[in-house]
Amino acid sequence: METAVGVLGGGQLGAMLVEAANQYRIKINVLDAENSPAKQVSGHGTHVNGSFKDAKAIKKLVDTGVKVLTVEIEHVDTTILEELASSGEVDVQPSPSTIRTIQDKYVQKKHLEDRGVASAKSYKLETPTVEELQKAGEALGLPFMLKSRREAYDGRGNYPVRSADDFKSALDALGGNKDLYAEQWANFRMELAVMVVKTKDDVLSFPTTETIHENSICKLTYTPARGVSVAISKKAQELARKAVACFEGKGVFGVEMFLLEDDSLLVNEIAPRPHNSGHYTIEGCYISQYEAHLSAILDMPLRQEDLMLRQPAIMLNILGGDAEDSHTKIAEAALTDRWLKVHLYGKGTARKGRKMGHITVCAPTMAEAQRRMQPMIDLVDKDKPKQSNGVSKDDLAESPLVAIVMGSDSDLPKLKDGLEILRKLEIPYVTRVTSAHRTPSLMAEVASGIADTTVQCVVAAAGGAAHLPGMFAAYTPLPVIGVPIKPSIGEGMDSVLSILNMPKGVPVATVSLNNSTNAALLAARILGAGDSGIRQRVIRYMEDSETAVRQKDQLLQRIGAEKYLEGMK
Amino acid sequence: METAVGVLGGGQLGAMLVEAANQYRIKINVLDAENSPAKQVSGHGTHVNGSFKDAKAIKKLVDTGVKVLTVEIEHVDTTILEELASSGEVDVQPSPSTIRTIQDKYVQKKHLEDRGVASAKSYKLETPTVEELQKAGEALGLPFMLKSRREAYDGRGNYPVRSADDFKSALDALGGNKDLYAEQWANFRMELAVMVVKTKDDVLSFPTTETIHENSICKLTYTPARGVSVAISKKAQELARKAVACFEGKGVFGVEMFLLEDDSLLVNEIAPRPHNSGHYTIEGCYISQYEAHLSAILDMPLRQEDLMLRQPAIMLNILGGDAEDSHTKIAEAALTDRWLKVHLYGKGTARKGRKMGHITVCAPTMAEAQRRMQPMIDLVDKDKPKQSNGVSKDDLAESPLVAIVMGSDSDLPKLKDGLEILRKLEIPYVTRVTSAHRTPSLMAEVASGIADTTVQCVVAAAGGAAHLPGMFAAYTPLPVIGVPIKPSIGEGMDSVLSILNMPKGVPVATVSLNNSTNAALLAARILGAGDSGIRQRVIRYMEDSETAVRQKDQLLQRIGAEKYLEGMK
Repeated sequence: METAVGVLGGGQLGAMLVEAANQYRIKINVLDAENSPAKQVSGHGTHVNGSFKDAKAIKKLVDTGVKVLTVEIEHVDTTILEELASSGEVDVQPSPSTIRTIQDKYVQKKHLEDRGVASAKSYKLETPTVEELQKAGEALGLPFMLKSRREAYDGRGNYPVRSADDFKSALDALGGNKDLYAEQWANFRMELAVMVVKTKDDVLSFPTTETIHENSICKLTYTPARGVSVAISKKAQELARKAVACFEGKGVFGVEMFLLEDDSLLVNEIAPRPHNSGHYTIEGCYISQYEAHLSAILDMPLRQEDLMLRQPAIMLNILGGDAEDSHTKIAEAALTDRWLKVHLYGKGTARKGRKMGHITVCAPTMAEAQRRMQPMIDLVDKDKPKQSNGVSKDDLAESPLVAIVMGSDSDLPKLKDGLEILRKLEIPYVTRVTSAHRTPSLMAEVASGIADTTVQCVVAAAGGAAHLPGMFAAYTPLPVIGVPIKPSIGEGMDSVLSILNMPKGVPVATVSLNNSTNAALLAARILGAGDSGIRQRVIRYMEDSETAVRQKDQLLQRIGAEKYLEGMK
Repeated sequence: METAVGVLGGGQLGAMLVEAANQYRIKINVLDAENSPAKQVSGHGTHVNGSFKDAKAIKKLVDTGVKVLTVEIEHVDTTILEELASSGEVDVQPSPSTIRTIQDKYVQKKHLEDRGVASAKSYKLETPTVEELQKAGEALGLPFMLKSRREAYDGRGNYPVRSADDFKSALDALGGNKDLYAEQWANFRMELAVMVVKTKDDVLSFPTTETIHENSICKLTYTPARGVSVAISKKAQELARKAVACFEGKGVFGVEMFLLEDDSLLVNEIAPRPHNSGHYTIEGCYISQYEAHLSAILDMPLRQEDLMLRQPAIMLNILGGDAEDSHTKIAEAALTDRWLKVHLYGKGTARKGRKMGHITVCAPTMAEAQRRMQPMIDLVDKDKPKQSNGVSKDDLAESPLVAIVMGSDSDLPKLKDGLEILRKLEIPYVTRVTSAHRTPSLMAEVASGIADTTVQCVVAAAGGAAHLPGMFAAYTPLPVIGVPIKPSIGEGMDSVLSILNMPKGVPVATVSLNNSTNAALLAARILGAGDSGIRQRVIRYMEDSETAVRQKDQLLQRIGAEKYLEGMK
């Protein structure tokens, strides 16, 4: 309890920061209203009641013996922070100038743009007038997003301007605010987020998360991001680290990004603190964003490897609903599956859309995490008009565990039985045609990248010279199952031996001719080695298959061989 | 915050219970000294300062509006608890009679014995005299353990009586205490512990944990228990559940057991509360023992499936040492690997042997968890005389991930290359000889049980009729890799086809003749599908192998084919 950390703000982010500090018995003094969430999980008496925007209160917090001062919200008084930091009274992390730059979204965007970080183009409105909006439209094109420069979050302070007809209503909506700017419209196909940790020496990143917003409020996060190649995931982390490297000071930063239709990335917004899109790290990673933030500001050791994902994770926000207790009902419903970890924030009255808590689920596979979270999403969406929020039962297919590759589409009919087995065992798969001989570079590209997707096992079918399984195995560290396909000429021993007789060093798991059934079952057993749900389904398949044979034996005993043979015609 | 839970005792167990309750914003009021660990992580003002043995203080706690009263320590005043429970003033869980029975270790043992639960025989000393010890020796044999019936923990209040010469010193040691009993000596080969959850309807159990004690204080726990078959692990859970079913009330119970040389099990001690051997559940399971305790006493839903292990886990206690800050030095050292989760208890002064905190590490495999925890164990053992505490580098082999089975030991030399690959890739394995034809029942037994061990993949080698891989696959849901061995007669196509041509429904991953190298590499790829550490080692192997071929190419270019051929002689 030697080092005391001061935190401006005691909401849920502050509370989770305190919980992380409690493990190490690091003392945190919180400045916020009495009984704010962060104070509820801390028993000592040296918190300060007051506003994190009030210079006097901030001074009072520092006077409690704080060594490092940090924030859980960026809308604080940076002038006093700068004074305190420059006078050496207290170490402020991240640095006050960083907080000030990020506070003003327009300045934030310019800061990034000037440093070559890809982000949406912005236009500053000198005055909140139709004329200025006209100019913004000329500079950025239409539609664009009209935004408040400060104090805007969860969609508040944003207004989409689709045409010149919207100019007046946009100004009416964001009315009183004189600090407005316009932002170029981003036609994104997905939103991604990366939590970045800036330590005294390094800029590190947590995995790439997919975020799903509804009414401009974060609803769900998926980590790893579904249906995103590793190349894009890496690019997102690089961009996020590059963006955070532009700022001074230490701590975690939430970087929200747009993934555009052409697979390019733009930074949307940066938060100089723990972030909603990083809640999943508490259960999903070996270290949470909160521990990482403490580690960064207190110079505790941290390496990139520490930020690894433990298991695929989904986070669902619990928002205030129509009724006062809508959110507690969701929390109670989550108790029917205790893999769902409920976090309630103790925030008192629930306004509609207010973040009252969240639920995280981790599982050995994204498919299982989705199966477990789906009832909660259904419950949240119960009274809502159906809309595509990227989450439906079909999404199970977005995180394939098995890739079925074939050299020619003519092999597909021979793989039908295997595909049926995978569906029966609820194993998501993806099918690809890549020929080792006719599309060697495509094959190399697919095979090289496959281990960086959610796929854990490859089934490759080929006939005749049958190079595909072995060539795939040469490019990937994943287990490859080879299915020899009987060619139109000959018995098929060519296919079998081409797949079987691999040189030492590059293994292929060979099954018998045309036996896609066994290839699929083998894939299921391989996945089941590490996933108890799949293993249980393999066991049930084995039991069913035993029962089927026993029944045939009983029938044979009862009716005799002659009658049985008649029935077989 | 509607239901308030009262807890007698605010030590580390109480603190971790409060942390679990904080997630759900369930209010817990603690009775213990001011600033006790549990109060440090809770911000509300309705805790009670005082002793959990003091009837008045307990009443005061109930008067804070407590609906359910529970304990984090069993040495409480049960008379007042019975009064409160029977008057209906408060629900006490587990029931006061259970706490009373367990408080007195002799009564606890008799209670279990009377209900047919295997536990060590005990003899009650009417008076603490040499004559009574003489009688105890006659009843139980020598050596035996002399124990205090109450208030004994972490080895205090126990004295080993090895011969009649020890009678006097035993009485001197446990001197003042008149409530003594003698317990039969248990020649155990291991200590196991199971956390049991008694809900209103069910008796559920967490996984079986291996506990390692030093100076009678718990030092380390390993979950799952290493080198323990699934049959024994299941027996341990059954015995633990049976023992707890003998007691009234709801909550978690820690059951410590001895595993004797003949593989039978005895209950050693029961704790009617969360337990040191269950700390690992915080990170290691999908739900912690603390959440489980709250769920049981508050009738929140809980199923056996919820108590599953997430990842193998090791817990190391941080004890007070010779210096005042010995324990903080250990905690600081743990920061060099952030997969190690440090829990400090905020207990103030460190007495030697006092539990000041603990460290838990989880990893995809027990081998990796051991690799990561080893530096901490080495640090703790630094100044101690070397002793076998069951933890050494050799233990890596105790949790095999691959089983290599062969029909005859004559196949072993052909598997040498494969074994070397597994060692090189740091994959622990076990080797067995079981013949499908000469030991059909042994083969069936081994194959049926193998999925219930830590093994995740089987390599089966066979020649000629070569039934072993297919028969193994018929008995287990694990992936089986078949290695055809070339027999002394013929080319070996018989071995290949026997293994390859499996009927639909039972897959075997076949590799080429005698190619144990590829079988091992395939096993590594299969494990690597779910274990990033192993996958990284597979990738490194592929890179090394590429480098080796590239170097040969360079050499060939440099010296030409003729010289190269000379070098090959």
